[in-house]
Amino acid sequence: MNSDLIRGNAIIGQSGGPTAVINQSLVGVVEGLRQGLHAAGVVRTIYGMRHGVKGFVKGDLVDLTSFHQDRLDRLAATPSAGLGSTRDKPDRAYCERILEACRTHDIRYFFYIGGNDSSDTCRIVAEMAASSGYDMRCFHVPKTVDNDLMENDHTPGFPSAARFVAMACMADFMDNISLPGIKINVVMGRHAGFLTAAGALARRHDRDLNPLSDQVSTDGPQLIYVPEVAFDLDRFAADVDRIYAKKGRCHIVVSEGIQDASGVSIGAKLIKNAQVDAHGNVQLSGSGALGDQLADFLKEKLTPAGGKPPRVRADTFGYVQRCWPDSSIIDQKEARRSGRFAAQRALAGDRSGSVAIVRTSGGSEAWLGVDNGTPSLSDFALVPLTAVAAKTRHMPPEFLSGTNNVSRAFVEYALPLVGPLPGFERL
Amino acid sequence: MNSDLIRGNAIIGQSGGPTAVINQSLVGVVEGLRQGLHAAGVVRTIYGMRHGVKGFVKGDLVDLTSFHQDRLDRLAATPSAGLGSTRDKPDRAYCERILEACRTHDIRYFFYIGGNDSSDTCRIVAEMAASSGYDMRCFHVPKTVDNDLMENDHTPGFPSAARFVAMACMADFMDNISLPGIKINVVMGRHAGFLTAAGALARRHDRDLNPLSDQVSTDGPQLIYVPEVAFDLDRFAADVDRIYAKKGRCHIVVSEGIQDASGVSIGAKLIKNAQVDAHGNVQLSGSGALGDQLADFLKEKLTPAGGKPPRVRADTFGYVQRCWPDSSIIDQKEARRSGRFAAQRALAGDRSGSVAIVRTSGGSEAWLGVDNGTPSLSDFALVPLTAVAAKTRHMPPEFLSGTNNVSRAFVEYALPLVGPLPGFERL
Repeated sequence: MNSDLIRGNAIIGQSGGPTAVINQSLVGVVEGLRQGLHAAGVVRTIYGMRHGVKGFVKGDLVDLTSFHQDRLDRLAATPSAGLGSTRDKPDRAYCERILEACRTHDIRYFFYIGGNDSSDTCRIVAEMAASSGYDMRCFHVPKTVDNDLMENDHTPGFPSAARFVAMACMADFMDNISLPGIKINVVMGRHAGFLTAAGALARRHDRDLNPLSDQVSTDGPQLIYVPEVAFDLDRFAADVDRIYAKKGRCHIVVSEGIQDASGVSIGAKLIKNAQVDAHGNVQLSGSGALGDQLADFLKEKLTPAGGKPPRVRADTFGYVQRCWPDSSIIDQKEARRSGRFAAQRALAGDRSGSVAIVRTSGGSEAWLGVDNGTPSLSDFALVPLTAVAAKTRHMPPEFLSGTNNVSRAFVEYALPLVGPLPGFERL
Repeated sequence: MNSDLIRGNAIIGQSGGPTAVINQSLVGVVEGLRQGLHAAGVVRTIYGMRHGVKGFVKGDLVDLTSFHQDRLDRLAATPSAGLGSTRDKPDRAYCERILEACRTHDIRYFFYIGGNDSSDTCRIVAEMAASSGYDMRCFHVPKTVDNDLMENDHTPGFPSAARFVAMACMADFMDNISLPGIKINVVMGRHAGFLTAAGALARRHDRDLNPLSDQVSTDGPQLIYVPEVAFDLDRFAADVDRIYAKKGRCHIVVSEGIQDASGVSIGAKLIKNAQVDAHGNVQLSGSGALGDQLADFLKEKLTPAGGKPPRVRADTFGYVQRCWPDSSIIDQKEARRSGRFAAQRALAGDRSGSVAIVRTSGGSEAWLGVDNGTPSLSDFALVPLTAVAAKTRHMPPEFLSGTNNVSRAFVEYALPLVGPLPGFERL
């Protein structure tokens, strides 16, 4: 116990797009507070914000202090933001209201679970509290399927979404072999290509289930386009044409966030009646427009003179990527532990920070360890809020390969995170 | 052993859209032939057609006779059509070529796994063989995620696809509560609404995992539209408006096959550059157009005067519905057994027929029995090819409720098929 600790209440909020494991982090914070000094009376009440800061400033709170552990365990295993989420991006005036709400409810421990925008909210609130002399601990707990937070090897939510993308691409690739044609799958990720790149994990119809053996097939998906590499429509058509001419089929994974060389989003250009959120982002998810436009483009471009257009199909994986209930076991555990870690550091006397995941093992051993129920891939660090807030991490160059693929290094990075994948047989 | 049996070779083909369990049926036929009289020399070689009749008429065959059982087991658990599939819909001239290929390869046992079009191919081939005096057994093995084959309580492929739709709707509904708005999910099923109706299985954030208790929530999805009920755009907008006004959110499941009162497909009307297959069907899957058009329609219709449009999102579940690897256990077993049953009846002397699934148990006991690894819900019957061929089964009136919902009877029918669903916690 740290003698510097202040007595008061704690509050936890969830923000941004939900994930399959964001409730693990919520429950982790509650458990961390309970296991820590709640019993000693330092933290009296543990509140949850309804719909993040949007509900908090209106006083819409839920008391989590006495929730039964059984309910918490079920909540942790439930996809979506159990407290409700928000896309509000507070400015300083909004943060004043948040701070006022903290004073009203005697909040001394503030936890916000979310991505880069949420960490920025946390940073502003922490700075305003400090400068106004209001003594409060402010912690950001990482969450994003985009995997784009600085300082993190990977982020809670990403492994589960990557697992969905990998399994969907594995199965859909087999479907593409069954009924050949050109198939485009559009994957979430506005600025970072990590989740799209997870499509590469589908390249295994292995027999021995050894993910890192040399027997990994590179057959499909054959083309992967991420936002980090400028997207050129003519080069895209040439890429597809080359593979389609050779195999009579082509399996493609493309990020919703692909952009041209001048940084203009291909999706934003194509989507009619686009909606813009409070962060100034054009709606890319919840629409099939990008995939459909790319399919129409390929049909037009690849129809031989006087001939039939090729069979082209596009699927946009949509929200199910971020909420599919069969989440990665490692992701479940890391998300829970990252919440607990934030609470532990708050009760150990740290004043503010963002939890970051640090990789501690190479991966394949941890991957093999999943079946024992004890994966241990990572540890946690507390980094300054300013190191994470409003910043975006991108795919590093060593994860990319040419203009239409990802590297072996990416596969070795991502495969241990998603957990065991099924083994398929191909005639 | 039936003394009437002819000696010769057997061939198996797969046709139409693949499913997660169509390879179970393929392996089932192989096992049935092996367990039967293959050892006694009645069936010499077991061939597979590459890409159905399309490959067969070109002589593109694979010899399955000596495949190791381990490979067959892995193949059975692999989604997609392992032999390759085709959308060709043979006319009589085409069927002459099929019969010619049968003569060339001394095929005396013909098995075709597919939906209503495939059963029609089987019927024509059987009739032409009989009228030309060529002695051959012709069997249709059922497969379709649409669940629209006559004489069947349900069809292999449907339970697994329904499981995906149910789980996706469960998780996406929680996502919709987290970030409220109007959400449309578009589900496969051109003429029959069974798969779309499976969205109703998501209405359970139960605590005791008793699927048939009265505690089943009816909260979401709130609206379900199937092709069997005429779709009216204005009524649709009014339905959504009513729920959105009350709850601030609305979760909708809609079939790709919805049509207006005069039978015109809403999707076909909206999709640009629509592709038409050999069966005269407009492409509905592999495009997000219907969902996007419905979303645009609702945005326009439900924007208050001078106000902001509601948050409307649409996802089209796409091909992953029919190939998701985590298939229903009951579906796996029934698909395998239906293939074996076809082979057994052929070797018992039956000349032709279509395998049909007959429900033998009420359901809830079988559902509870899944965990023991021994679900047993159904038995099999052999029905005349003409009873199934080119016919479509629709949702019976007792499965419908009003113009925008399905009945409790449908839930009791479908829930035992999909296997255990996760239990969620809601604050």
